[in-house]
Amino acid sequence: MFISKNLNVNEKGNLTIAGIDTVDLAKKYGTPLYVLDEDLIRENCQKFKKSIDSYYGKNGLVCYASKAFSCKEIYRIMKDEQMGVDTVSIGEMYTAILAGFPSEKIYLHGNNKTKEELRFAVENKIGRIVVDNLNELEMIDSIAKEANSKVDILIRVKPGIDAHTHDFIKTGQIDSKFGFAIETGEALSVVKLVSKFDNINLIGAHCHIGSQILDVDPFVLAADVMIGFISDVKDETGIEMLELNLGGGFGIKYIDKDDPVDYEEYMKAVASMIQKKCDQYNLKKPFIVIEPGRSLIAPAGITLYTVGARKEIPNVRTYISIDGGMTDNPRYALYKSEYDAIVANKANEERSEIVTIAGKCCESGDLIGENMSLQHAESGDILAVCATGAYNYSMSSNYNRNLKPAVIMVKGGKSRVIVNRETLEDVVRNDI
Amino acid sequence: MFISKNLNVNEKGNLTIAGIDTVDLAKKYGTPLYVLDEDLIRENCQKFKKSIDSYYGKNGLVCYASKAFSCKEIYRIMKDEQMGVDTVSIGEMYTAILAGFPSEKIYLHGNNKTKEELRFAVENKIGRIVVDNLNELEMIDSIAKEANSKVDILIRVKPGIDAHTHDFIKTGQIDSKFGFAIETGEALSVVKLVSKFDNINLIGAHCHIGSQILDVDPFVLAADVMIGFISDVKDETGIEMLELNLGGGFGIKYIDKDDPVDYEEYMKAVASMIQKKCDQYNLKKPFIVIEPGRSLIAPAGITLYTVGARKEIPNVRTYISIDGGMTDNPRYALYKSEYDAIVANKANEERSEIVTIAGKCCESGDLIGENMSLQHAESGDILAVCATGAYNYSMSSNYNRNLKPAVIMVKGGKSRVIVNRETLEDVVRNDI
Repeated sequence: MFISKNLNVNEKGNLTIAGIDTVDLAKKYGTPLYVLDEDLIRENCQKFKKSIDSYYGKNGLVCYASKAFSCKEIYRIMKDEQMGVDTVSIGEMYTAILAGFPSEKIYLHGNNKTKEELRFAVENKIGRIVVDNLNELEMIDSIAKEANSKVDILIRVKPGIDAHTHDFIKTGQIDSKFGFAIETGEALSVVKLVSKFDNINLIGAHCHIGSQILDVDPFVLAADVMIGFISDVKDETGIEMLELNLGGGFGIKYIDKDDPVDYEEYMKAVASMIQKKCDQYNLKKPFIVIEPGRSLIAPAGITLYTVGARKEIPNVRTYISIDGGMTDNPRYALYKSEYDAIVANKANEERSEIVTIAGKCCESGDLIGENMSLQHAESGDILAVCATGAYNYSMSSNYNRNLKPAVIMVKGGKSRVIVNRETLEDVVRNDI
Repeated sequence: MFISKNLNVNEKGNLTIAGIDTVDLAKKYGTPLYVLDEDLIRENCQKFKKSIDSYYGKNGLVCYASKAFSCKEIYRIMKDEQMGVDTVSIGEMYTAILAGFPSEKIYLHGNNKTKEELRFAVENKIGRIVVDNLNELEMIDSIAKEANSKVDILIRVKPGIDAHTHDFIKTGQIDSKFGFAIETGEALSVVKLVSKFDNINLIGAHCHIGSQILDVDPFVLAADVMIGFISDVKDETGIEMLELNLGGGFGIKYIDKDDPVDYEEYMKAVASMIQKKCDQYNLKKPFIVIEPGRSLIAPAGITLYTVGARKEIPNVRTYISIDGGMTDNPRYALYKSEYDAIVANKANEERSEIVTIAGKCCESGDLIGENMSLQHAESGDILAVCATGAYNYSMSSNYNRNLKPAVIMVKGGKSRVIVNRETLEDVVRNDI
């Protein structure tokens, strides 16, 4: 009946998340409001970890890709779950460390890390820097030399796989701003180069083939290509890379027709391919890292809005306006991403109409979705948009000088604020 | 040679804005950096004002559409230029008032104003509320009743004009989340309804037909339709609307092929149509309001970045990575908007290559543009992206926990910060 298993309807006919009445949450904290379910986040972490334990002999690490949703509390939860974290900026590293996350389990990614970011990473002994380009390699070596330290790196390679998803979120193919191509020999030549840098340890390789991938096959193919690359590197240079980071990109169920594979099936198939290829090439099975972001946190989140204007345009469409929009969820404006929505105070009523959900920004493209099946929504109703835990708060803006909503976490029948709602003072705080 | 007339090259071969060396600015303030030219903003304000003075007998007001770029200093400048301002949220109204902008010259827009926003507008005696829907009308009346005041409103109508621009920024046609349709009789019935509300004064009507419109014709057609509507209203109800707000949408030169009409030509043609139709219908010429945003401020701004990685993919393309991206300029990711860019420290060199400019976000769609003609760019160069004064800072986000750049204003050979660069402390300030 609902997209995420933590959603239900209570005796009042109201939508619940993790057993808590969402209409009560909207009343208590105001709207728009991001709501996250802590138990589901933890359960998802454990599923990924267990799949490595079961199929890969505990020889791996699950890193949370924190660009999906970053704040201090999420790094505390990840620490508690004994996860690693994948960060992409000084802002994310800083937040993680401030929250007490162990720096040796932090990975730093990015196609254009600044000198400041690299210096921060070296000074704070971040576990791995995933090197994307030669410019960066030279900067790391020079920073590490100054700091009299040796830095563990992976190199990011393009395995040349196109995982058939939205154009904007393809990252494995050769036409990408990320990494070094395998097929042109670029990646191999970089490995040879790295051995000349005194203050850099080459630990392994990383790839990332795309986002919101619903099948297992592209991941298995990536594992195949990457083990082949590790074997070529060994043959050509004698260097045996001990760590293979296969990135993330695991899809989730946003709308009814999405049918993602179980995380377990993914690891089972990938582990089997790695085993086969390592046997074939006579390699030691590498330590494996995977980086789920969206799949850990998106299904655990919903966003609550208050419905304002309802506008029926005869023979055209019905617009339902809400008190948020592209400022708190820009994914429809950016990618035409689809979502499921529910009128929270009418959750057991029939979905009797097809509507367009419009945000409050002064911009026609500010929509949450078009042609959505919904209960009859009127001014004052609470609207829940589902599976918004990832890439909503993290991508939010202050366009129109709108304020960023609060984020609350629910667990065990209780709720708590983990990110405060912005105030008017916040919006002008840097204005002179 | 350059897209905006305030750009030039100095004896060092560096790009200048309003006579100031942009490479020096990058060194002084760091990158990414938004730079605005105060004189050009003021000149643009004066051009619009003068066009009303010359062609419409000073019987009008130019309102700056501040969603294009909002901060305290811009409202101070608009006050000084005796402009009105168009706001779209409590955040923008609050900022304007905090900066000392006179509230009677503030217009409030929006398809879904919240009760809090309407209450703020009434309590602060905002000049005009532009009413978008019936829900709002009732809220305004009830808030005004409580406050024992009478509120001046315009009603937003859809003139049914499609100004042939990007799908996302069409707003005049009947399928829009904004306003009441004329052609269905909806707008007329709303006028009749308004007269029943004791605490609301209907002053006039507002329309907005789109964005980045490069021709005069759609505006002339809108004036034609709107005067027709005012005439119909008078015939049907006896009410003569005294104010006509024709909105904004005036296009600018982003790239060489854009050829916007002079602002003067726009007002000349529109004034002539209004005169003609008012004579025809025997109407008093209404007070006219226009709302330029982009056209006032976009050409006055550039963004400076430092070039990081350069990635040549043989037979595919060359990526030039910068230290900003979709977080400070999401317009390519959102609309595939095109920009001109210049290597600021090589501004008098030939544009010798075609490149893709990539941002530093961990997202493949994070590009500033593709197939851009540019001087040979290398790590450490300063890149200027032109005409970024509008919808860049205002739409910026903290995606990837990147920090929002500083905004500086240049004038008379000097520069000053008008919005401070965000710090790491800013990014975590609301995290619990």
